[in-house]
Amino acid sequence: MNKKIINVAIVGVTGYGGLELLRLLYNHPAVHVVSIHNTSDNTEDISTSYPHLKFMYKIKPTPLDPVHIMQSTDLVFFATSSGVSKDLVQPFIAANFPVIDLSGDFRLTADDYQTWYKKTPAAQYLLDQANYSLADFYQNDSHYIANPGCYATATLLALAPLAQQQLLDQDNIIIDAKSGLSGAGKAQNLSSHFINVNENFSMYKPNQHQHIPEITQQLKKWQATIQHIQFTTSLLPINRGIFVSAYVKLNKQVSADTLQEIFEDTYKNKPFVRVMPKEQLPDIKQVVGTNFADIGLTYNPNTKYLTIVSVIDNMVKGAAGQAIQNMNHLFNLDETTGLQLIAQYA
Amino acid sequence: MNKKIINVAIVGVTGYGGLELLRLLYNHPAVHVVSIHNTSDNTEDISTSYPHLKFMYKIKPTPLDPVHIMQSTDLVFFATSSGVSKDLVQPFIAANFPVIDLSGDFRLTADDYQTWYKKTPAAQYLLDQANYSLADFYQNDSHYIANPGCYATATLLALAPLAQQQLLDQDNIIIDAKSGLSGAGKAQNLSSHFINVNENFSMYKPNQHQHIPEITQQLKKWQATIQHIQFTTSLLPINRGIFVSAYVKLNKQVSADTLQEIFEDTYKNKPFVRVMPKEQLPDIKQVVGTNFADIGLTYNPNTKYLTIVSVIDNMVKGAAGQAIQNMNHLFNLDETTGLQLIAQYA
Amino acid sequence: MNKKIINVAIVGVTGYGGLELLRLLYNHPAVHVVSIHNTSDNTEDISTSYPHLKFMYKIKPTPLDPVHIMQSTDLVFFATSSGVSKDLVQPFIAANFPVIDLSGDFRLTADDYQTWYKKTPAAQYLLDQANYSLADFYQNDSHYIANPGCYATATLLALAPLAQQQLLDQDNIIIDAKSGLSGAGKAQNLSSHFINVNENFSMYKPNQHQHIPEITQQLKKWQATIQHIQFTTSLLPINRGIFVSAYVKLNKQVSADTLQEIFEDTYKNKPFVRVMPKEQLPDIKQVVGTNFADIGLTYNPNTKYLTIVSVIDNMVKGAAGQAIQNMNHLFNLDETTGLQLIAQYA
Amino acid sequence: MNKKIINVAIVGVTGYGGLELLRLLYNHPAVHVVSIHNTSDNTEDISTSYPHLKFMYKIKPTPLDPVHIMQSTDLVFFATSSGVSKDLVQPFIAANFPVIDLSGDFRLTADDYQTWYKKTPAAQYLLDQANYSLADFYQNDSHYIANPGCYATATLLALAPLAQQQLLDQDNIIIDAKSGLSGAGKAQNLSSHFINVNENFSMYKPNQHQHIPEITQQLKKWQATIQHIQFTTSLLPINRGIFVSAYVKLNKQVSADTLQEIFEDTYKNKPFVRVMPKEQLPDIKQVVGTNFADIGLTYNPNTKYLTIVSVIDNMVKGAAGQAIQNMNHLFNLDETTGLQLIAQYA
Repeated sequence: MNKKIINVAIVGVTGYGGLELLRLLYNHPAVHVVSIHNTSDNTEDISTSYPHLKFMYKIKPTPLDPVHIMQSTDLVFFATSSGVSKDLVQPFIAANFPVIDLSGDFRLTADDYQTWYKKTPAAQYLLDQANYSLADFYQNDSHYIANPGCYATATLLALAPLAQQQLLDQDNIIIDAKSGLSGAGKAQNLSSHFINVNENFSMYKPNQHQHIPEITQQLKKWQATIQHIQFTTSLLPINRGIFVSAYVKLNKQVSADTLQEIFEDTYKNKPFVRVMPKEQLPDIKQVVGTNFADIGLTYNPNTKYLTIVSVIDNMVKGAAGQAIQNMNHLFNLDETTGLQLIAQYA
Repeated sequence: MNKKIINVAIVGVTGYGGLELLRLLYNHPAVHVVSIHNTSDNTEDISTSYPHLKFMYKIKPTPLDPVHIMQSTDLVFFATSSGVSKDLVQPFIAANFPVIDLSGDFRLTADDYQTWYKKTPAAQYLLDQANYSLADFYQNDSHYIANPGCYATATLLALAPLAQQQLLDQDNIIIDAKSGLSGAGKAQNLSSHFINVNENFSMYKPNQHQHIPEITQQLKKWQATIQHIQFTTSLLPINRGIFVSAYVKLNKQVSADTLQEIFEDTYKNKPFVRVMPKEQLPDIKQVVGTNFADIGLTYNPNTKYLTIVSVIDNMVKGAAGQAIQNMNHLFNLDETTGLQLIAQYA
Repeated sequence: MNKKIINVAIVGVTGYGGLELLRLLYNHPAVHVVSIHNTSDNTEDISTSYPHLKFMYKIKPTPLDPVHIMQSTDLVFFATSSGVSKDLVQPFIAANFPVIDLSGDFRLTADDYQTWYKKTPAAQYLLDQANYSLADFYQNDSHYIANPGCYATATLLALAPLAQQQLLDQDNIIIDAKSGLSGAGKAQNLSSHFINVNENFSMYKPNQHQHIPEITQQLKKWQATIQHIQFTTSLLPINRGIFVSAYVKLNKQVSADTLQEIFEDTYKNKPFVRVMPKEQLPDIKQVVGTNFADIGLTYNPNTKYLTIVSVIDNMVKGAAGQAIQNMNHLFNLDETTGLQLIAQYA
Repeated sequence: MNKKIINVAIVGVTGYGGLELLRLLYNHPAVHVVSIHNTSDNTEDISTSYPHLKFMYKIKPTPLDPVHIMQSTDLVFFATSSGVSKDLVQPFIAANFPVIDLSGDFRLTADDYQTWYKKTPAAQYLLDQANYSLADFYQNDSHYIANPGCYATATLLALAPLAQQQLLDQDNIIIDAKSGLSGAGKAQNLSSHFINVNENFSMYKPNQHQHIPEITQQLKKWQATIQHIQFTTSLLPINRGIFVSAYVKLNKQVSADTLQEIFEDTYKNKPFVRVMPKEQLPDIKQVVGTNFADIGLTYNPNTKYLTIVSVIDNMVKGAAGQAIQNMNHLFNLDETTGLQLIAQYA
């Protein structure tokens, strides 16, 4: 597709993903946000609850009307919680209308979804339409894009260069992933209470995070021997950012220099993945607010483990930014359009 | 001035103010950053020390050469520490070349500078060229703009509507101002050590902050009776943001509704100052990363004190953003150009 | 009273105040915690929800049985939310059994309680038994102690030296008070969500905080002319600590040296109030985890305002620690018993 | 040794370790701090720089005089930076006077010290006197105790049950360790600047941390086959606390239930190591301020990796608390004396 101005609708506008789409699309030169929708019947002006949006958008949320959306826009973003889009997306898919879904509803097979999300999966004919699209390796032009999860994005970008070269020892892929609290959304519960997060660090859902099957499914496409990853997630006392520490063994001997080259080659034409100089590791701060994934390596000859560090902003590269990058691909725009952002250093 | 593309140079590029100019100007549609300069002879690529800038700017710092800057650019920003620009700016002023100075060197009279900064002031003929320009009340076209300080900006915008109407009781203007740590710059000392800031709150320089004379000087221009303000500054354990709590009495009786109207009227055509609905107060988060100053009021009939809360991002509205806003004025651009930013909510 | 071991019961053991009593009493050499009680019928071992207590207390919560408590203990602490103890305390008061109440239920007159807490007050004959006891000025031996609020404690200790000397200008008492989040308790709501607190600062309940009447009521006892204070409260992005910035004018001229002396004299025999050296202001970190209130002053001859800074740990001096200090008084122990704590500096 | 009151001296009193000894020993019922010493000639009252200590200690730092210390005390703590005690400790060792050294100077062989600390090691005859003493497995009565490092303590307690049973697969011991900033001490540098730590997370010294040889050396004593561990350290944006995520394979098949039992058995008589219920993992908050190490496990049958989480307070269990625990052993006190502390929950 190629269109001068892309008119879009956003469903799920008061969650963190929706708010981030509003923030980023505001400065996208080729996008016009035509309508915004909640899954509740809340039509209150969003600046009432979110005063940071005062003066920015003139539109109020309206009830979700697929026919009207398809008449008035070119694309709909779903930024809803898991279990929502699978029930709402049908009319759009039936009409082959472009959808980018930030939720997990269309990332997995029906079986895996059932197992990991403990919910009824979407209908199979809908799942068949969806394409899981890690935007930096975009290669389809499906109208229904399942946007990857935040942890999955950071992990897959860390492992892609090795998996694509069939280099991973499939028995020793250990991922220790950490995320800031925005990854958990706006739910008010014990684990989002300030007192329980601040000056604390905790591991949650060890071996049970729903991004695990999303990661192994994609890894398998690159390196068929991979069945399982050792994957834990922990909560950082910060607002934003994912830090993935991957510890992997290789299935054959490769020098540290060659490993560095493999990473640099894989990402040399990918504007949003920055490979750090040899032996230098990225930190979270350098990507917060941006669509970058920054990656660094260091090899330990004693243990034969390669340490890969990958950092992203979970709300941008791990959600709304990647969704916009996928949209840019879908509409044949330069993939960086509207996403050329520099982190706030201080 | 009116020019399609404004070529600029930045002096002092590795301080927080300079880094923020680089961040914001990157997306300014009418600006091209032609050269960057340090006050030291460090010409190392900035992405070496600041990896968040990797891939963003192709230029390296070069030694400061005023003649070359004036030949190749239209404007120079000084984002240097206090005491630096007063010695470096002379050739630009002599040539009537546009300068926007983010430091405090040209904000005060020579006497006040000496008293509050404890340094030798700039030469008087240079001071005579400088114009202190609170960008939301921009009204000059001087080529030498002294950009206001961060605390001064937040405080003046809180008091302007009343001072301009001659309504302040000059004996009872109490400002309790708080700032995140970026306001203190990148100096490594006891008071910037993480352990001393995190989980802490401290007052510093009570009655001694160098922004005090800058505030009273401007207030006097609006309401001649004002001589002194009670002004203290405290350090918040956050990266960015200023929160000013102003407690003022009025010199005549004015209803709470009228006060609200006075604020709304003062700022009704100022796109960067958002007056909150009656009895609603802004918080820091709603302006971080943006050029907004958000203001709210609440009146206490028992004590006759009006509480005014004003919040800004000290690095944007309180430094680089306001400097760009002043630049937009100077070059006859819409003042919001390149500054239409939404805060990261989550 | 004087007893070798004081047996105590605690009601409301899973709120922050109750947890802090458990923490502090664990090392009190003269106290034995005999029983703990919830206001719900939750009798689960507290270490299930609060693993930090594992191995510490062998007792489980039991249903509240006043007769049994009075038979088996010497004192009951109520660490319940406002509106609870007023209904539960009756049997204890009727029996003249010692009660220390950390809630606000017995601090105010019936009218003030109704006005500020918007709840039905306790019965008048119960209110008549209660004594508001700022522990550092303990002077009663009532069996029913209303323990002061956290903001009230920090504010009253800041103002006591001047009010007791009738020195405050009653028209200009401005208190800008800030607290860490534990002051708001464990309720899970928008304002306790990590994302809304971290990297933020906000003012709440301006002129409406329920500690206001508690402060004015006590100030009036010291200086009868005082009717109102200008009082606002803000939320700091930290777990613990209150920082009170008080700006006051005096009703006659007093030198800065004399003011310092007045403070030092007032507190010279008070082991928990530390007056800082002249012109030095305390920060929150120096008192967190302790029962100290640290106070510093600085006078501004231009504005005639005296700035007083007072810091406490809201959970210790502002709640459980002060309650224990009151208990020590009631049982004729040295008031510092069990409370000789040093802040964690790093 | 058995003595009613233990008189102690502390060398290095203004570093974080020394300050923490002062904090904890203040409430130790059997210890009297007789003298405190700096390695500089600073004899200023410590409350001048550390106001949290005001009123607590009457003593001022005095120049280090080994003869006088040995005459007036029973034990000396060295809480100095690495490279200091090795040069100062000689007279004490020569006299067989009890020393507990919190630094790394006597933990390693001369060769390892040279390799990992890049400094000249202590003389061999001094090293021969020192005993590395993980306090929960205390088993010597040497007068010269090398107190373990913070990361080493958390890691060794996580691995001890398996290593002691010869169960670790020596090729796959992966430790992802994170620490709060106090672990880095009070040095003022880029990596301790608030802006670089807050809202950030970074890995440092991967495969190069000086606690690595300390860990492998001790593991080898338990399980001789262990040569190397994969060990990285990261910086948490908090003041205190270490969180160790250990991922290990076993060299034979053991059920998850048996693994849990092995941990519970190992620690059943160790009052400071709390094994969490099955499948429950500890967080940092539950041990901050205490001498506890809390440990939890979860086994992944797909990957054959066991995840072990171990948390400690780096300043207490990882430094001053463990030193006191070692002192309690040395003087035949109950090992919990003075260390029965509950974490501040809120």
